Amino acid sequence: MSELKGACIIGQSGGPTSVINASAYGAIKTALESDCITAVYGAEHGIKGVLDDKLLDMGKEDPKELEYMKYTPSSALGSCRYKLKNAEDDDTDYKRILEIFKKYNVRYFFYNGGNDSMDTCNKISKYMAKSGWECRVMGIPKTIDNDLAGTDHCPGYASAAKYIATSVMEIYRDARVYDTGMITVIEAMGRNAGWLTAAASLANYKGNGADLIYLPEVDFDLDAFLDKVEEIYKKNGKCIAVVSEGIKDKNGKYISEYGAENLAKDSFGHSQLGGLASFLANAAKARTGAKVRGIELSLLQRCAAHCASQTDIDESFAAGKAAVEYAVAGTTDRMVGFERSCEDGKYKCNIKLFGLTEVANAEKKVPLDWLNETKDGLNEKFVEYALPLIQGETKLPKEDGLPRFVQLRKVYAK
Amino acid sequence: MSELKGACIIGQSGGPTSVINASAYGAIKTALESDCITAVYGAEHGIKGVLDDKLLDMGKEDPKELEYMKYTPSSALGSCRYKLKNAEDDDTDYKRILEIFKKYNVRYFFYNGGNDSMDTCNKISKYMAKSGWECRVMGIPKTIDNDLAGTDHCPGYASAAKYIATSVMEIYRDARVYDTGMITVIEAMGRNAGWLTAAASLANYKGNGADLIYLPEVDFDLDAFLDKVEEIYKKNGKCIAVVSEGIKDKNGKYISEYGAENLAKDSFGHSQLGGLASFLANAAKARTGAKVRGIELSLLQRCAAHCASQTDIDESFAAGKAAVEYAVAGTTDRMVGFERSCEDGKYKCNIKLFGLTEVANAEKKVPLDWLNETKDGLNEKFVEYALPLIQGETKLPKEDGLPRFVQLRKVYAK
Repeated sequence: MSELKGACIIGQSGGPTSVINASAYGAIKTALESDCITAVYGAEHGIKGVLDDKLLDMGKEDPKELEYMKYTPSSALGSCRYKLKNAEDDDTDYKRILEIFKKYNVRYFFYNGGNDSMDTCNKISKYMAKSGWECRVMGIPKTIDNDLAGTDHCPGYASAAKYIATSVMEIYRDARVYDTGMITVIEAMGRNAGWLTAAASLANYKGNGADLIYLPEVDFDLDAFLDKVEEIYKKNGKCIAVVSEGIKDKNGKYISEYGAENLAKDSFGHSQLGGLASFLANAAKARTGAKVRGIELSLLQRCAAHCASQTDIDESFAAGKAAVEYAVAGTTDRMVGFERSCEDGKYKCNIKLFGLTEVANAEKKVPLDWLNETKDGLNEKFVEYALPLIQGETKLPKEDGLPRFVQLRKVYAK
Repeated sequence: MSELKGACIIGQSGGPTSVINASAYGAIKTALESDCITAVYGAEHGIKGVLDDKLLDMGKEDPKELEYMKYTPSSALGSCRYKLKNAEDDDTDYKRILEIFKKYNVRYFFYNGGNDSMDTCNKISKYMAKSGWECRVMGIPKTIDNDLAGTDHCPGYASAAKYIATSVMEIYRDARVYDTGMITVIEAMGRNAGWLTAAASLANYKGNGADLIYLPEVDFDLDAFLDKVEEIYKKNGKCIAVVSEGIKDKNGKYISEYGAENLAKDSFGHSQLGGLASFLANAAKARTGAKVRGIELSLLQRCAAHCASQTDIDESFAAGKAAVEYAVAGTTDRMVGFERSCEDGKYKCNIKLFGLTEVANAEKKVPLDWLNETKDGLNEKFVEYALPLIQGETKLPKEDGLPRFVQLRKVYAK
């Protein structure tokens, strides 16, 4: 493969995570050190920064300050939720992207995101190939949802899972402190895949978990749910249920819609969910008369860098680094992902490449045989899968007892 | 002071915290090691455990296992919200307590809680003195609300404050990741005192904070709030407001009542609050059309042991230890509290005793001159006060990447 000299762009897209910046830092650092890469640009707010010619010159940042990116949550370069049209229908955006690539001699493009972002990445990759502008395009996965196809798991998932399991263990202790009854409903993110919600079962594994766990992979029956809650509550005086924001009834209607009249939709056509925990808690109260509490883990589950998994941070960094290394070595049109192996009984995570077309817009769900027989909990297969991922405490630097996050200068490229 | 030999009871009461068990462990460990104390009993669910003759024999626990109490959130012995009547009006409970004290030869009583618990502790102390049963009664403070009179600060506050400041810093990063507008309203606990909400200003001190902070110490004007939110949103495209659950309008009506029709009341006559963040976020949406998010920190702020302040843990332990040491040395009818001193420019926390009558039911609020001029934020006086308290990362032991909490055998005394 011939050596390709030129600039690179790194963009971040979609909902942020605790560790997406670790991937970006892995890519930026490796690119800055590469002889082939002549300039390293961060696209401000993902592909919109390319379209708007708002590129941040990462070479103008203090390398010591950049190190803090590895432990800073959310997308330091800014993110977007911008869906590229199909080039056959409307190639306006693509022409503009090519124009910018030519202006800055961009020969490497790294896009860091989830399903929708891999779609964007794939479309750009195919357009560049078709247009004859040599540019190596690599996807770097991130999503707390853990629903990207191919890869064993996604950077960002483990840290969210660790936060959820830890929080459920803590809430478990809190929710049974009184000798009076209490029903607690906790809502985790996950529109179509229940990986995050399933993470609550790691708390069960440690003996401080939920009585009931409901994933969007299984149709949700409100009456059956209330029956079970009532039964557990009558027996134990306490009941903790963890539900995914995306649970639906057998007709495909979101349970959150039962309580919410008007739902806005985001630019990808997804319904805006929320308020589900309160709705189910109130339904449980109406049924049992118990004191109830609905807890929405909300943004905290995706930005709680203080509770990140160091395994996740290190793997995220490695994914960013590998994307640049593979691209420089000649690879293009691939997403970097993970494959798990076991060496001497120990979990090991290896880099594996996946075709962008293969991963774009495909969703990986929790296998149904990882659920228990009554479909309201997970079995040991899930624990075996998830436990290695959440190992290791973050080395997040602290100042004055609080996190020290990165402060970028953000100098625009000219 | 004559040596007093006999058993001791330790009870926990009121809402739990991340570190109330550190205090209980400090008291239990010291009592188990004391020559004067013949048996150490944990009252199951506070004073209700005494009334119900449900005392846990702490001598039957494995001492190595007990050490985990120091880092386990919530009340390991169980808590209650039980208000003792005035003995002059109805002495039924007091007679029963005395009966139990005589049955087990209880000569030391330690009660670990907040305002209401210090009231209970005070009443028992006065009744025992009047009845002629020699029993040394000591209060050990705990409350995330930080509103106990006398003491410089309360065990439990700093850990909740650290969690709130950390979470606000993380949410700050997350809430400005897109180039589209966003208004975020975060609700912290604190019915009458704004200490917890004020902790958000520590995030401001680190440059990742809230635009607006509203404490219950100041009348809340919904229109003025929306004016400010709109102004900030129009200027910056983002706005983060942190509000106390207990904010009220000038007529004393809880803002949370604006949106909630029916409010249950707990056994102390406090209104059950909640849903405020969503209400204010929706009001901001109606005013500005912005995308909004309401985040209730809920139970997480009082049970997030994984983000506790080691300073808080150590001080909480010291308070429990001191309570036993003072009692054995002859002190009674006091609450252990803290006084701050400065040595070589460094914060130091010293034990100081306070009269139980003095602290029972009194509330300490945030001084108004610690607020900024517009009463929607805190000034440097608060930061100077709170910052030393949140120093140090918890040494919470982990197993499999998750907290290792205490597992008590809970053997009843006979």
